[in-house]
Amino acid sequence: MTQTFEIAVIGATGTVGETLVQILEELDFPVGTLYLLAGSNSAGASVPFRGKNVRVKEVDEFDFKKAQLAFFAAGPAVTLSFAPRATAAGCAVIDLSGALPAEQAPHVVPEANAHVLGSLKKPFQLSSPSPSATNLAVVLAPLRELLEIQRVSVTANLAVSAQGREAVSELARQTAELLNVRPLEPQFFDRQMAFNLLAQVGTPDAQGHTALEKRLVHELRAVLETPLLKISATCVQAPVFFGDSLTVSLQLGAPVDLAAVNRALEAAPGIELVEEGDYPTAVGDAVGQDVVYVGRVRAGVDDPAELNLWLTSDNVRKGAALNAVQLAQLLIKGLV
Amino acid sequence: MTQTFEIAVIGATGTVGETLVQILEELDFPVGTLYLLAGSNSAGASVPFRGKNVRVKEVDEFDFKKAQLAFFAAGPAVTLSFAPRATAAGCAVIDLSGALPAEQAPHVVPEANAHVLGSLKKPFQLSSPSPSATNLAVVLAPLRELLEIQRVSVTANLAVSAQGREAVSELARQTAELLNVRPLEPQFFDRQMAFNLLAQVGTPDAQGHTALEKRLVHELRAVLETPLLKISATCVQAPVFFGDSLTVSLQLGAPVDLAAVNRALEAAPGIELVEEGDYPTAVGDAVGQDVVYVGRVRAGVDDPAELNLWLTSDNVRKGAALNAVQLAQLLIKGLV
Repeated sequence: MTQTFEIAVIGATGTVGETLVQILEELDFPVGTLYLLAGSNSAGASVPFRGKNVRVKEVDEFDFKKAQLAFFAAGPAVTLSFAPRATAAGCAVIDLSGALPAEQAPHVVPEANAHVLGSLKKPFQLSSPSPSATNLAVVLAPLRELLEIQRVSVTANLAVSAQGREAVSELARQTAELLNVRPLEPQFFDRQMAFNLLAQVGTPDAQGHTALEKRLVHELRAVLETPLLKISATCVQAPVFFGDSLTVSLQLGAPVDLAAVNRALEAAPGIELVEEGDYPTAVGDAVGQDVVYVGRVRAGVDDPAELNLWLTSDNVRKGAALNAVQLAQLLIKGLV
Repeated sequence: MTQTFEIAVIGATGTVGETLVQILEELDFPVGTLYLLAGSNSAGASVPFRGKNVRVKEVDEFDFKKAQLAFFAAGPAVTLSFAPRATAAGCAVIDLSGALPAEQAPHVVPEANAHVLGSLKKPFQLSSPSPSATNLAVVLAPLRELLEIQRVSVTANLAVSAQGREAVSELARQTAELLNVRPLEPQFFDRQMAFNLLAQVGTPDAQGHTALEKRLVHELRAVLETPLLKISATCVQAPVFFGDSLTVSLQLGAPVDLAAVNRALEAAPGIELVEEGDYPTAVGDAVGQDVVYVGRVRAGVDDPAELNLWLTSDNVRKGAALNAVQLAQLLIKGLV
């Protein structure tokens, strides 16, 4: 008989939490008891798992001694409140909120820096990076050896689902109102989101950077283990329900060998390369899939030391829930 | 009495042509007779000008000797067929299609390189750059003196109106079908455009670059008079009806003085600077306006020699029709 593990999912009713539970089932993760947890607003709801509806309980009342591994898929405040409790109870923590310091809970993307797990000490604490950083890491990891990457410029056009269910409903509602020529009354977003692009996701700090942009820069450097890599990042809110689309421009130390880049991407795990003549999109390809789609692989217009890529991926699934479950698959080898 | 000029508009029924006619009226351009021209498909339609409906005639049958100045606002093929005829007839040409070689018809954005007109020879030929290049030039021109710009990375999220009326109707139709849970049958676009982003606008060449991306690079260099400037460009098709949104990252030779950048942008013509705490959007600000909106002015996350900007502008108006009319205002001084 296979060993099973008692698993807690905090933020179980959110877009990421619910997908995470679904992936635990799909991948036949050795779950013994599944504890679904959330704040008092969501407690009482239920989420399907292995043919049954599992009732969501209040995280505040949970005894973390009951679980061996806890996924934190709610906001940073929830992680900061309850992850220390989990750790104190000896429960392994995989955080998706970006709240824990990197020294305490290193950022890991299995395709890029799985070896970090070899030096973790119990009780294990890991961070699953933000979706944009995760998906960029999956694609840039196999190119690290091949290219001397001097600078990465990224524009991440993000789906509204990154901001949860309310944002998804608001985009649908705004769109319907506009198509029916009814007056637009923005609620979740503070302005028109339908048929429009917003310059930022979240509120910028005094230097003008949003938390997501800072996470992208710091987490990507950490996962690629290139602490000095120059990264410029802008996260834009696009009127797309699910699936992020990233334009990436790499400045290289030498002319790029495109055939070698294509071969490396083709051979790498977690990537689906779409060859020239076609290109992937969020809706048409990435949503619901376990890979990052890469297309439009090309040099600069007249700069052979530039490499441009188009990446699209399911932000909730590949960028968050799946990466966290993949980390758990690696972690439980050390929990046995 | 003011001198008037006989003006021809080729492509008068398109989104840009129609806006151009409207701007001629708004700016009280000294039009004597207005000749509206188009291919045989659109001839017979009429376009309002100064309270009358002007009938659109076939360009093929037009005698360019009747006009002193012709705007070419149709596709490159139309310019290549008829601009030589106009020039042979002594008629000044302002091309918006990008079809004419730069040596023959220099690219000009009045805010950036109006001085070029001083050395033009009759019959005058000018090119109004693509909307993205035009709007970038308006914003980068006042920063040229201030900053040592080494590289420009641009992601241009383009409105569907750049592809004409059919594209606008198709986005509306696809969106309505999806909201009504009817099967999507893409027509103008070859895949789902509603709630999705397309990786490219137009078909890439053998090196993977689209014509729009190449225009952006070459035209921006020409207008800024920086032939060696490194520019990386990706043009993305966004599910937005009107208004382009550009993320721009500049790599500089020295740390940026953000206060000086803000002052220069504030003082420059053709720009509306939106200060921190707010940001402009295509729909909320730019559409219908004569300026490029700039927001999110900031350095890199930890690179002081990086300058990031968010630009949004009316692609049809500020990016095309208005620039062409502003060129005409300068040109007619030489036609007197």
